[in-house]
Amino acid sequence: MQDSSNLKISPGLNPEFMNPVDLTLLRDTLLLALREDIGAGDLTSRATISSDSRATAQYTTKQELVVAGISVAQEIVRLVDSNLQFEILTSDTTSVSSGTALATVRGPGQSILMAERTSLNFLQRMCGIATLTRRYVDRIQGTRARIVDTRKTVPGLRVLDKYAVSCGGGMNHRMGLFDGVLIKNNHLAFHSSVAHAIEQARRCLGHLVKIEVEVRDLGQLQTALAAGTDVILLDNFNPAETRKAVEIVARRVPVESSGGITLDNVRDFAEAGVDYISVGALTHSVPAVDIHLRVTPE
Amino acid sequence: MQDSSNLKISPGLNPEFMNPVDLTLLRDTLLLALREDIGAGDLTSRATISSDSRATAQYTTKQELVVAGISVAQEIVRLVDSNLQFEILTSDTTSVSSGTALATVRGPGQSILMAERTSLNFLQRMCGIATLTRRYVDRIQGTRARIVDTRKTVPGLRVLDKYAVSCGGGMNHRMGLFDGVLIKNNHLAFHSSVAHAIEQARRCLGHLVKIEVEVRDLGQLQTALAAGTDVILLDNFNPAETRKAVEIVARRVPVESSGGITLDNVRDFAEAGVDYISVGALTHSVPAVDIHLRVTPE
Amino acid sequence: MQDSSNLKISPGLNPEFMNPVDLTLLRDTLLLALREDIGAGDLTSRATISSDSRATAQYTTKQELVVAGISVAQEIVRLVDSNLQFEILTSDTTSVSSGTALATVRGPGQSILMAERTSLNFLQRMCGIATLTRRYVDRIQGTRARIVDTRKTVPGLRVLDKYAVSCGGGMNHRMGLFDGVLIKNNHLAFHSSVAHAIEQARRCLGHLVKIEVEVRDLGQLQTALAAGTDVILLDNFNPAETRKAVEIVARRVPVESSGGITLDNVRDFAEAGVDYISVGALTHSVPAVDIHLRVTPE
Amino acid sequence: MQDSSNLKISPGLNPEFMNPVDLTLLRDTLLLALREDIGAGDLTSRATISSDSRATAQYTTKQELVVAGISVAQEIVRLVDSNLQFEILTSDTTSVSSGTALATVRGPGQSILMAERTSLNFLQRMCGIATLTRRYVDRIQGTRARIVDTRKTVPGLRVLDKYAVSCGGGMNHRMGLFDGVLIKNNHLAFHSSVAHAIEQARRCLGHLVKIEVEVRDLGQLQTALAAGTDVILLDNFNPAETRKAVEIVARRVPVESSGGITLDNVRDFAEAGVDYISVGALTHSVPAVDIHLRVTPE
Amino acid sequence: MQDSSNLKISPGLNPEFMNPVDLTLLRDTLLLALREDIGAGDLTSRATISSDSRATAQYTTKQELVVAGISVAQEIVRLVDSNLQFEILTSDTTSVSSGTALATVRGPGQSILMAERTSLNFLQRMCGIATLTRRYVDRIQGTRARIVDTRKTVPGLRVLDKYAVSCGGGMNHRMGLFDGVLIKNNHLAFHSSVAHAIEQARRCLGHLVKIEVEVRDLGQLQTALAAGTDVILLDNFNPAETRKAVEIVARRVPVESSGGITLDNVRDFAEAGVDYISVGALTHSVPAVDIHLRVTPE
Amino acid sequence: MQDSSNLKISPGLNPEFMNPVDLTLLRDTLLLALREDIGAGDLTSRATISSDSRATAQYTTKQELVVAGISVAQEIVRLVDSNLQFEILTSDTTSVSSGTALATVRGPGQSILMAERTSLNFLQRMCGIATLTRRYVDRIQGTRARIVDTRKTVPGLRVLDKYAVSCGGGMNHRMGLFDGVLIKNNHLAFHSSVAHAIEQARRCLGHLVKIEVEVRDLGQLQTALAAGTDVILLDNFNPAETRKAVEIVARRVPVESSGGITLDNVRDFAEAGVDYISVGALTHSVPAVDIHLRVTPE
Repeated sequence: MQDSSNLKISPGLNPEFMNPVDLTLLRDTLLLALREDIGAGDLTSRATISSDSRATAQYTTKQELVVAGISVAQEIVRLVDSNLQFEILTSDTTSVSSGTALATVRGPGQSILMAERTSLNFLQRMCGIATLTRRYVDRIQGTRARIVDTRKTVPGLRVLDKYAVSCGGGMNHRMGLFDGVLIKNNHLAFHSSVAHAIEQARRCLGHLVKIEVEVRDLGQLQTALAAGTDVILLDNFNPAETRKAVEIVARRVPVESSGGITLDNVRDFAEAGVDYISVGALTHSVPAVDIHLRVTPE
Repeated sequence: MQDSSNLKISPGLNPEFMNPVDLTLLRDTLLLALREDIGAGDLTSRATISSDSRATAQYTTKQELVVAGISVAQEIVRLVDSNLQFEILTSDTTSVSSGTALATVRGPGQSILMAERTSLNFLQRMCGIATLTRRYVDRIQGTRARIVDTRKTVPGLRVLDKYAVSCGGGMNHRMGLFDGVLIKNNHLAFHSSVAHAIEQARRCLGHLVKIEVEVRDLGQLQTALAAGTDVILLDNFNPAETRKAVEIVARRVPVESSGGITLDNVRDFAEAGVDYISVGALTHSVPAVDIHLRVTPE
Repeated sequence: MQDSSNLKISPGLNPEFMNPVDLTLLRDTLLLALREDIGAGDLTSRATISSDSRATAQYTTKQELVVAGISVAQEIVRLVDSNLQFEILTSDTTSVSSGTALATVRGPGQSILMAERTSLNFLQRMCGIATLTRRYVDRIQGTRARIVDTRKTVPGLRVLDKYAVSCGGGMNHRMGLFDGVLIKNNHLAFHSSVAHAIEQARRCLGHLVKIEVEVRDLGQLQTALAAGTDVILLDNFNPAETRKAVEIVARRVPVESSGGITLDNVRDFAEAGVDYISVGALTHSVPAVDIHLRVTPE
Repeated sequence: MQDSSNLKISPGLNPEFMNPVDLTLLRDTLLLALREDIGAGDLTSRATISSDSRATAQYTTKQELVVAGISVAQEIVRLVDSNLQFEILTSDTTSVSSGTALATVRGPGQSILMAERTSLNFLQRMCGIATLTRRYVDRIQGTRARIVDTRKTVPGLRVLDKYAVSCGGGMNHRMGLFDGVLIKNNHLAFHSSVAHAIEQARRCLGHLVKIEVEVRDLGQLQTALAAGTDVILLDNFNPAETRKAVEIVARRVPVESSGGITLDNVRDFAEAGVDYISVGALTHSVPAVDIHLRVTPE
Repeated sequence: MQDSSNLKISPGLNPEFMNPVDLTLLRDTLLLALREDIGAGDLTSRATISSDSRATAQYTTKQELVVAGISVAQEIVRLVDSNLQFEILTSDTTSVSSGTALATVRGPGQSILMAERTSLNFLQRMCGIATLTRRYVDRIQGTRARIVDTRKTVPGLRVLDKYAVSCGGGMNHRMGLFDGVLIKNNHLAFHSSVAHAIEQARRCLGHLVKIEVEVRDLGQLQTALAAGTDVILLDNFNPAETRKAVEIVARRVPVESSGGITLDNVRDFAEAGVDYISVGALTHSVPAVDIHLRVTPE
Repeated sequence: MQDSSNLKISPGLNPEFMNPVDLTLLRDTLLLALREDIGAGDLTSRATISSDSRATAQYTTKQELVVAGISVAQEIVRLVDSNLQFEILTSDTTSVSSGTALATVRGPGQSILMAERTSLNFLQRMCGIATLTRRYVDRIQGTRARIVDTRKTVPGLRVLDKYAVSCGGGMNHRMGLFDGVLIKNNHLAFHSSVAHAIEQARRCLGHLVKIEVEVRDLGQLQTALAAGTDVILLDNFNPAETRKAVEIVARRVPVESSGGITLDNVRDFAEAGVDYISVGALTHSVPAVDIHLRVTPE
């Protein structure tokens, strides 16, 4: 019988390991990043470090953080120079204290320096997202609600951004426009009523597709429920309105809160009884964490 | 005689217009972003908006901000559907108040919805960078110092991140490892002295390349000057130490401050007399600004 | 109020028009096909047709068929030579009799000949799929069932294959592994019971994802229903067993038939009361239809 | 002295082994196919199979067939996960009976499931082509004629389609427009006579290029021979006319039959004495063969 | 009736016009060249020329030359900035004297400067090849022989190199390994005799493929003829030996001379009676011609 | 302490070893070259060499030359067939006499033949550049001047062309428009004076960028010096004028000679006291060196 402990907690990358096909799919993104930094070559390293110099270097955090993307750093290092040895000293999803060594890399000195900035740029963003997500998740501990992300990711990095959210304990919402239906206000503008929009959509969609509808007040909420929506999104409801909405829905379909959620008020929404709380800031306003690479020539 | 008013203020994209060759070079980045969001198609728009519906939509800011990247949003819209009309109502580098309309787009409703999120993701980040940069620039008004960026950009978006910095009034540091030499602590670790590193580098480098050296104390500073560095970077000096360093250099070469600079202390460094102040947070910890798209069916 | 007549009937390409972003996404596929045929140049046309010769040519069908992919042929022609004029004389989803002219192309003779085979290869396959699908759809007229496709498409052409199915009146099942969950026998092999697999999956999946489960007998069917599956797939049930399964489900969730369906027995399954019937042959065993291009020099 | 037993029988891929450079050239095609199926990830496998589950699986045929493309399936599996062990149990060109195991794959369960559909899609088409070709080849056993393919292949898969034909015992005609000259009716339309077209082509072409001319009656045939064509293509001749044409040519140049050839009449053409018989259906109307993958968790 | 005056003289690009599909195929090559030169932007032009400056510039030759590639220069200019107007003042294959203006370009000054070097690099090489070829062609005026090129082209530019040869009046040999058979000494090393190699090849090759065999002495020549080679290549024969070989062949098959051919001795080979003389230096040792671009601000 | 003996002598590829990241960046260029030659397959080798034949082959020079690009040949061979063993017998920058073996390759005979022409095309050009450069370098032995290259490289091969120059002992000038400022006559045309251009550029450029100015007479030279140029380029000065210019500059900034430099007069310029002499012919008019591959079947 299947042991569930290694199952993915959400449809993104697996925190436990990075699947080889994902790495293949990410290869182009990583190479793009390396090329934009290295271009025709690293002038400084070539002019100051001999080609046969070897060194060891350590990725160390200077603040408390949740680890995410250590395999991405490893892959960057491997792409720069397959002779570099990269040893992972911690694992994604782990919370570590300031001063913790996350990984070491050993090999040609020029290559380590060439990989430094790009690997840090990925790692600092991804750990930043996981750390911020964890703070939201911790804040709603004990409620039924789960923190979910949005499509407000940095262009080109959606898979990594969403993976980092899952490392922090968040759930992933849909990946893009292609794998889920969310009827928002801008879609409703084309319809005489919420009901009309839902009915039309239901007629057009395949049988594996759920419909989520964004509602702005309790009236819309009731129409959407009556028209058979599969999921409700409460857009910019305050906690009191949210509580009322949850009562109306009465667990018939899942309810998601969205808009204006901060670390300060997230627990109010969770305690109002919703199932999901989506937070755009998890990926659109990420403070990079402080991680350093210190190089020691051998 | 050449009028200087339209010259670029730094080696990035020109705030005044987006050069066609730059757009060609950016095309792949923008398409990548669109494909990651749209993939096999926009389920919701196709199920709720008829293919012959037309609409007008307006990009409106909900906060004060400095505009950057309006041409990128335009190009995203054009890539999604060349039938969409995009009208720019403001211009990059302009500071606008909350409620300002930045642009309108008009055409097939499905296409507008398909372009919405991706164009906003670019615009919210780029305006976020420009706005943050402007705050730093304003803070040091009246001093000789200029704000410069770093290589701590989001992977894949370096050109756009640096362009946004220039829209905010910042200068661009080198683009990558290939177009400037900055000897940092991790390079010096391979050498017996700062002087040795500089001499070796000078011997290897082409005649159009300047050498900047990162120094950690006044001793290193004096050795670097003696060895003929072209630019000095003061790494993690406090304002008092900075003032002393500036006196020692005595305008023989430009001086740059770096490390631990915030909006609170940036003026202290500027008043210490340095020429440049580099701030990683301009691009590594960007709060997205609040811009909305409101769609009105025709 | 939104008119529903132009809504897509399934989540693929729109039969009514080809969306510009889809064309952008298909561009690489079409260019690949052209390059594999043209390579370093069309020896024959260059050696026998002068560069200033002009001609008109007509795509004509030699059999009854359902049109699909006429915009793809147009795009091929445009990629070969933007000076070619392509006039569409019919439209996707239309059923036409033998001898019907589908489109004309006019311009440089060399270019017409260069585009001939590749445009026909696309058109003959896509119309072949649409025509075959229509035969299945016609066969179950008057029942509640709908014909759906599978992932058994030709590698590289999934979007076009599925679009052609929709032109024939079929529905599209999920696009790939990323936009829908279908727990098949090979997944169940890792679990002690159907119930266990469904419970585990439910815990891991986002709130917009439905679960469909493939069952092999009525016992599995009842367990799956009890465990809360969203959709049932009857794998290789005969019509009598199918009828029994439909009774057990009693419209609580949609039911799909799959495996061993042919034109001869499809109506038996439809009359057994299922909601969907998936047919792999629609895309994995397609007989090309007979379409010719006749060129007339001007 | 060179042993001829391992020589390729036609200018496509070698049935005996897949050349590494061919695999490099095919890599993009295979990745494209994987990405179109896997996209942002395999939701079902990730939600139902733990990342450390391992399994063995067997590709087994449920019908008699000629094997083709086993190396392509292997490469798909390798691209999905380089940790997967793929053991080939048969070889291309071999004819196997129903129930035969073609290959086994062993390793992470998630990865096997992720590779399943795409590897089968390639294998079922390629074996389908080889099996159909073999039926044609068997039908003309004992005559001088050889079965050849056409350019009527599925867009993007020409190299694989033609390789599969060679596995079935067919010869490959030209790869595309770039490696052979075939003057068809649509080219002749630009000329006053067949003779004129041939003379003009001869003047323009390099000295390694042969000219084949499509003729529609015995008059054209005689003109083409007189004008010095290198090969004759009889377009839509019936067997009696074909016999007459073969007599006229009298082995001066090779003769190819084309148009309207089926399994029922192919022997009539072969016995009429032609050298080549080209059959579009080999690649444009391929019935997929029935191959299954059965997974057994370890 | 088809007028032959615009037919291509060899299977490369058409000197009379550049076919749109060729331009599509060349697009990647040209963009690659532009990116390698422009990278993150043209520092000098941006720092010295305002974005609204306009200018006219003229491509002028400072030596006598044969024009080739003027459309390539035009396409480079168009890729840099579609606002630039490029006027062609001469045409490929034309011989012009020193001081002739080849083309003018007009538009944004920055864009003209950005396109300058890359367009000149293409033009100077292509005209260099055409000019050198013309000298060989002129040298053998009045003989039956024709000058042909080889596969010794610069990596990545084969199509353009061979096109330039045709502009100079040369014929194109095969494009690559895929469109013609030339059995050279390194292939013969695997065989007991020339005859054996030819027989084996004939058995394996499609019916549109000719076989050319490289022979090193008269003995090999006679064996090759007896074994039915389609074309003979005389490798490093001197003129006297060549004359003897031509007598032996007696016009049964075409004869090509290769190896050690220079402007000084090429006529000796031509007068020996061969049909083709291949010259590697046409493309592997090209002296760039002297063409300047002079810019005049408006 | 860092040993300087393995430091790169110029900002290109390292003669001592080929950095893995450079190889990654070059991969696309090499594959492009292979595909243009091999396309759909090597007809000749497949028809004459059995797939299990093995051979050894040796790259041997037939003239004196300076080695450059041996790692590129190795990488080509590896891309064609990873089973091929490539043994390097010499090293880049080494001067070897006629008859020297540069490398051997061993493995499948078909693969060796497939790699032959493309590997030779790279090697013959790169060694050609290195050999020509060495002749210039030798000619100015004992002076302070250094030979530098230009941007007049073959499109697509700039990195390799410049690397080959460094193998010959030359220095590399800027890589492209993005990593150095050179104000030429065509830029000055937009300004009222050299001084005006320099001042404007200085205001716009980052603090790591040097300005080089091309001057045409001693007047311009003096203005440029007064305006603070970092480097002087003497355009088409003769040796006497050059000597005068060097006196005026008096070592305040480096001086470069350019235009009309040949092997015959290069020493005159060097003896005039300049620091750098740039020679376009190093890369725009390269005579390929004579290297052969001889194959011996095992």
